[in-house]
Amino acid sequence: MDQAGIETIVASSARAATGWAARPRADRAAALIEVADRLDESADALIPIGQRETHLPEARLRGELKRTTFQLRLFAEVVAEGGYLDVRIDTADPDWPMGAPRPDLRRIRVPLGPVVVFAASNFPFAFSVAGGDTASALAAGCSVILKAHEGHPELSAATAEVVRTALDAAGAPPGLFQIVYDRDAGVAVLEHPTVKAGAFTGSIPGGRALFDLANARPEPIPFFGELGSVNPVFVTARADADRGADVARGLIGSFAMGAGQFCTKPGVVLAPSDGSLIGALRGAELPPAAPMLNERIAEGYRATLRGLREHPGVRVLAAGDTPYAADPSPSVLQVEASAFLDDFDALSRECFGPTVLVVGYDDERRLLDVARQLDGQLTATVVGDPADEIVPDLLRVLATRAGRILWDQWPTGVSVTYAQQHGGPYPATTAPSTTSVGTAAIDRFTRPVAYQGVPAHLLPPELREDATVPRRVDGTLTH
Amino acid sequence: MDQAGIETIVASSARAATGWAARPRADRAAALIEVADRLDESADALIPIGQRETHLPEARLRGELKRTTFQLRLFAEVVAEGGYLDVRIDTADPDWPMGAPRPDLRRIRVPLGPVVVFAASNFPFAFSVAGGDTASALAAGCSVILKAHEGHPELSAATAEVVRTALDAAGAPPGLFQIVYDRDAGVAVLEHPTVKAGAFTGSIPGGRALFDLANARPEPIPFFGELGSVNPVFVTARADADRGADVARGLIGSFAMGAGQFCTKPGVVLAPSDGSLIGALRGAELPPAAPMLNERIAEGYRATLRGLREHPGVRVLAAGDTPYAADPSPSVLQVEASAFLDDFDALSRECFGPTVLVVGYDDERRLLDVARQLDGQLTATVVGDPADEIVPDLLRVLATRAGRILWDQWPTGVSVTYAQQHGGPYPATTAPSTTSVGTAAIDRFTRPVAYQGVPAHLLPPELREDATVPRRVDGTLTH
Repeated sequence: MDQAGIETIVASSARAATGWAARPRADRAAALIEVADRLDESADALIPIGQRETHLPEARLRGELKRTTFQLRLFAEVVAEGGYLDVRIDTADPDWPMGAPRPDLRRIRVPLGPVVVFAASNFPFAFSVAGGDTASALAAGCSVILKAHEGHPELSAATAEVVRTALDAAGAPPGLFQIVYDRDAGVAVLEHPTVKAGAFTGSIPGGRALFDLANARPEPIPFFGELGSVNPVFVTARADADRGADVARGLIGSFAMGAGQFCTKPGVVLAPSDGSLIGALRGAELPPAAPMLNERIAEGYRATLRGLREHPGVRVLAAGDTPYAADPSPSVLQVEASAFLDDFDALSRECFGPTVLVVGYDDERRLLDVARQLDGQLTATVVGDPADEIVPDLLRVLATRAGRILWDQWPTGVSVTYAQQHGGPYPATTAPSTTSVGTAAIDRFTRPVAYQGVPAHLLPPELREDATVPRRVDGTLTH
Repeated sequence: MDQAGIETIVASSARAATGWAARPRADRAAALIEVADRLDESADALIPIGQRETHLPEARLRGELKRTTFQLRLFAEVVAEGGYLDVRIDTADPDWPMGAPRPDLRRIRVPLGPVVVFAASNFPFAFSVAGGDTASALAAGCSVILKAHEGHPELSAATAEVVRTALDAAGAPPGLFQIVYDRDAGVAVLEHPTVKAGAFTGSIPGGRALFDLANARPEPIPFFGELGSVNPVFVTARADADRGADVARGLIGSFAMGAGQFCTKPGVVLAPSDGSLIGALRGAELPPAAPMLNERIAEGYRATLRGLREHPGVRVLAAGDTPYAADPSPSVLQVEASAFLDDFDALSRECFGPTVLVVGYDDERRLLDVARQLDGQLTATVVGDPADEIVPDLLRVLATRAGRILWDQWPTGVSVTYAQQHGGPYPATTAPSTTSVGTAAIDRFTRPVAYQGVPAHLLPPELREDATVPRRVDGTLTH
């Protein structure tokens, strides 16, 4: 696409953003529901395209589409409720103890403007065209320019058509949702002065490059990138002794699910060297080989897997016959904690595919040593006994490293809820105080504006006395 | 300071951050109050140092210290209330309509860790050693390394000593608050992998350089910089006709206050070319000359003022005899809207000192033209009549450009309250969704963590059933 094309798209997106931001919240909520309904109605047309382009099985794609439309409807609820506006009202107070009178101040969150969303490959519905970033940006009142993932272009086009038709039917401004297909166009949009934020889900190198571009702009803009995570699992000695075989079964179900192509796949598991978990994994039966999303991902997986398997400290605990095939069989690898800590950067790298590295320890205190070394993570899991002495310290350290901490559960399967947190310190994300899943994801696309002494009829309706949104009045929460 | 010195400071800060984050909120609140009390008690010792180093008058400094200790006590209230934790609890739900059971998820905001704060020169108390950034970071549970401003080193040392003594007396961990004095040390701390955020108030070039360093780190960290703003004021034709002379008096009071050295000083005012505001300003009596904070600031001011005065389209409406003196007399300059728009970048630059540029218009629609051209601003002010036709559009555009919008009031004098927003799109700040004044400033120093299925006794106390903080349970706000 040439620069004139980019200008047309961005100008149209800017006009749409202005119109969309001014619409009553009920209209925005209704449009999100319309998109959800039409996507559900289009399932039979969309699913086969997804199967062909991503090699994901039908049931998985149908489940993912359900998640996607649920998510759109949940954001409709969020918009209708209005709590995300974080409305704060200070009435004028001549005796405010600061030493000067307090003016009438009313604060609300407003949409950022046009935003660009870079779709992911591994969730062709839920983190793609009509996924969480698009849903939360539209909910916030922003317009969206979607950079389609090259892994599923036809599905992207078909989904985009459904989204556009639904938005039109709901009376949304033209240009509210647009799609571009090539990387250069995505970059040009991200660098365009009219665009006010970027969202991305993908690899560390790709995400870092876009993050750097967003920050190098004359006007830097927020870039919400979800990059990489090994989602470590810490199994205590007592839990290993009590139920190591059960934990092994759960782990196999989680790490190999979807050919290991989840951002929350447990990639590193710490357990006692001679314990029952490692014993149960040794030569264990693993799920059958499954196709990967595309050749580029398969290639990256093979290279990382080869690096791990050829590492002098690493041995194979269990693996099928074709770990390097286009449809790779899953692999369970093992390394001792001392070797792992000695070559931490190489061995703690994300391996995007059906491989898990089990780190054996002789001394439970290694759990804390590893936790302290960790880069930022989307998740960290403790499989322990509530009475384990090490657990409080371990949880405390993990809270400084990860966005979500699980107890005796597996991190794959990220629920879309009010309390979900899918984010974490870099490189899990580039914006550690935000989430890309759950209702709080809408916060990324808004910023606060305070109105001082503005007459009621000129205020946004949510700042007037008769508004019904949750709000903090003179410091006290009311709803 | 050598690298070994930096390592010692940062290591001590990291240990303190761990201890501080684990303290009950009541302890953190009590420590903030102790700092406030001791600063108030030390007023007679601190104020004369401030007068000597900053040339600010005693009454101003006493008022600022009051603001500073009020702010510390307000953050103590915020910490005690706990609403800033944004607690969300989803109870387990086997029938969650997403298509998979919802786990028990509990989300809370946790402190980021050690942070570095770069002090400002123009508020030697309120935006310096014990100012808003320090207060909100300590409140959040972070440790603080303060880079003192070279404009008031003795006051910084004396204030830091009071802060440290108060924190010690309150039982805070050693190293919780530390101070460094040279720029290189500040940069080294910002680049240290253990440090998790930076806050800054100052110039655009200085702030951008630090922002770039924070983002270029292997692990980029949030950088909350408040950089520059011209705080435009839009006077409608009707308001000008009705009360132009009153507006002139208010403007003179605001722009020349404190020798014009406020980040919210109105720097550009739009008004009818032949109107009563400009008429009243022509040859108006201006406040007396006042000393600037220091020679570096005076030098920058003179250079920018000279650029404006020597601009072919600019003429002097009113000025004292010594606009370029070390104690400059205030200046009111004028330019026509067409010339202003023709050379917008040069003429809309912040001039940090007692100068205002009045932009005359013949056609009220120029107000919208200028508003649309604006970079990000801390504030934008409308002086209008509620019935003015242009006002709704003008407010809508300004909400996309500024963090605070005032109606018929002056932007100087930023109240510390619950609804305050002191921030805005770049270059007003580098983080447009945050504020550096008001209770929401604490949000900058926290990030969310969700706990999934974690036994109650291992959860942070605020996530247990019996906690009393405001929270959202299964999507519904309760308190």
